[in-house]
Amino acid sequence: MDPLAIAGIRLGTACAGIKYPNRRDLVVIEAAVGTQAAAVFTQNAFCAAPVVIARNHLAAAPPRYLVINTGNANAGTGRQGLADAQETCRSLAEQVGCRFEEVLPFSTGVIGEPLPLDRLTAGLPQALAALRPDGWLEAARGIMTTDTRPKMASRRTVIQGQEITVTGIAKGAGMIRPDMATMLAFVATNIGADQQILHQVLAAAVADSFNAITVDGDTSTNDACILLATGQSGVTVSADGPDYELFAKLVTEVCTELAQAIIRDGEGATKFITVRVEGGRDEAECRQTAYTIAHSPLIKTAFFASDPNWGRILAAVGRAGLVGLDLEKVAIFLDEVCIVQGGGRAPGYTEAQGQKVMQRADITIKVALGRGEAAARIWTTDLSSDYVRINADYRT
Amino acid sequence: MDPLAIAGIRLGTACAGIKYPNRRDLVVIEAAVGTQAAAVFTQNAFCAAPVVIARNHLAAAPPRYLVINTGNANAGTGRQGLADAQETCRSLAEQVGCRFEEVLPFSTGVIGEPLPLDRLTAGLPQALAALRPDGWLEAARGIMTTDTRPKMASRRTVIQGQEITVTGIAKGAGMIRPDMATMLAFVATNIGADQQILHQVLAAAVADSFNAITVDGDTSTNDACILLATGQSGVTVSADGPDYELFAKLVTEVCTELAQAIIRDGEGATKFITVRVEGGRDEAECRQTAYTIAHSPLIKTAFFASDPNWGRILAAVGRAGLVGLDLEKVAIFLDEVCIVQGGGRAPGYTEAQGQKVMQRADITIKVALGRGEAAARIWTTDLSSDYVRINADYRT
Repeated sequence: MDPLAIAGIRLGTACAGIKYPNRRDLVVIEAAVGTQAAAVFTQNAFCAAPVVIARNHLAAAPPRYLVINTGNANAGTGRQGLADAQETCRSLAEQVGCRFEEVLPFSTGVIGEPLPLDRLTAGLPQALAALRPDGWLEAARGIMTTDTRPKMASRRTVIQGQEITVTGIAKGAGMIRPDMATMLAFVATNIGADQQILHQVLAAAVADSFNAITVDGDTSTNDACILLATGQSGVTVSADGPDYELFAKLVTEVCTELAQAIIRDGEGATKFITVRVEGGRDEAECRQTAYTIAHSPLIKTAFFASDPNWGRILAAVGRAGLVGLDLEKVAIFLDEVCIVQGGGRAPGYTEAQGQKVMQRADITIKVALGRGEAAARIWTTDLSSDYVRINADYRT
Repeated sequence: MDPLAIAGIRLGTACAGIKYPNRRDLVVIEAAVGTQAAAVFTQNAFCAAPVVIARNHLAAAPPRYLVINTGNANAGTGRQGLADAQETCRSLAEQVGCRFEEVLPFSTGVIGEPLPLDRLTAGLPQALAALRPDGWLEAARGIMTTDTRPKMASRRTVIQGQEITVTGIAKGAGMIRPDMATMLAFVATNIGADQQILHQVLAAAVADSFNAITVDGDTSTNDACILLATGQSGVTVSADGPDYELFAKLVTEVCTELAQAIIRDGEGATKFITVRVEGGRDEAECRQTAYTIAHSPLIKTAFFASDPNWGRILAAVGRAGLVGLDLEKVAIFLDEVCIVQGGGRAPGYTEAQGQKVMQRADITIKVALGRGEAAARIWTTDLSSDYVRINADYRT
């Protein structure tokens, strides 16, 4: 379905020619006066200039405008990059008559090239003129880079007799191993909430969605996820109010749908793989095991080849660094088929069973560690020859 | 050059039909009475059956025979796998008239298939009949799986008027991120030394060679490296003797040459990449940064494309998890060209300079962290479309 509009949010796009001509590469999102916001950013030590500026501005004032460009990440650009990100905000603020701190910049694209500031600022009037409440789909398209499809999600419910809507868009297909948030995601709602509540809701939603996916293990320099609450429904949630859980659930659902869409659109991906590890001593060791599996090039190429090469999964579990792991208690499943039990191939398992599961486009690898009650679940892709082609050709 | 023979060591091979017909897939190495040995094995929790048995046997007695098969790893094979590895030793021991614990088994190949014990033991007489002192090259060929060339190294020197020789062979091209030792390596010398000295020398040699390489980050279930000292030169080294350093240097050189040969023959590899990280607070953080770079699919594909995409290197350094890293102090070099300085592109760096380095087959990525005196160095490969093809087709 088309994304639901959010009262108080308008979106506009423009072709600014940042990297290529005639490509929608500039997006402005406007939030009505009174909007509150929370955000999470990349933990990469080399965070991009716009991440630094957006974090500072968000600490100073609630945002009125977000400006997002593709084609250039403005990362690894040193002091000039910071100055360029600030100048972007200043230029937009002048045109709309708000304070410079009320603008948050976001960039995505090639790392290490200077931001073409002139072309970016020259595109702002066109994007501002295009602002409209139903601009979500166009904005989702406008933030794409190697993505092959726009990523959007909406949920609605009724709280206190009012229709509450949550809508989000995201981009990302490579350099995906979010650490706080994914490449770029923008979520908005017409509910009212203060910054602390929004941050709490967003952090919980992100932990199980954007922070539980990986394409290639490479955490981007530009990851950011922001949640805007316009309050224009007239409904306000409080930390101990009856509607907190419902609101948190909607935001989590939107983030989860977007995170899954990123994995489904992972560079060169032909399969959507859920890795579930259970029976661990704590969640950390379950996640560690799940990521060891999800990052193994050997497992990823086997899935690309639809080869139920369970030995590679077993080897990955073995090297995940779990102290005192008892092999006899470990079991591994591909969907409903038990492939490993007691340290070896499960009795009764046949290659034909494994082949059958491998023909599916959505597959769950389940690992039962048999040493505790904790569990974790992440999503990932296979590794195809197209992944290599896409990333070998990216700059050429 | 051809590998140098080692007095007291004979090698023989056979075509046992373990996985394919008419392929040299069985190797026996015989060590004269009086040979001492040390070995290091994989740290993978799911270590293969032959690793378990070899470790036990080595603790019980110095080895007289090593038996190595390709085509089947005898890993993930549970209790039957252990019984099969023991039966392999028993069969060989009966034929040569030694104790069963004096035989060490090694296997490499597909994980999770039962070992074809009948075919293996049926091939032993042929391998034993073929034993000869100059069988090193044939043995190096006999342990190959996805390797495209045999890997051998020899060194010689004179100690106490006697010619001392060290010769080694190794195999490995994929599932390479050794953790204690690489896939399989066998090194022998005619010097005499007790097990403790041998272990000390081997551990130091392995740390900087087999334990400093990675193709795909996947630690194998079967990694093993063994050092045999026949003592037949009449020269004996002691821990505090004058020749200890010289002997240790020879073993390290042989291990280093073999480890580099594995990387040069890495699955689908088109480039040999040295990653050197210096200026760290301790060696651990330097190694951590080096492996983050070496395992990044984005960096590996950029090298495959000969694309000096330094932003990806910078992003990997940023996500390596170094607390308090000061970006302004980080510098990154491709061979002699400084590409990153002060958190961004180095002043004066041009794409043409980077392109020139990228045309080379051997390239060093040097990262200067600027926060200490420690350093580390590892070797790795690029990630090519052939890597995906090789690993997607492996079992079919």
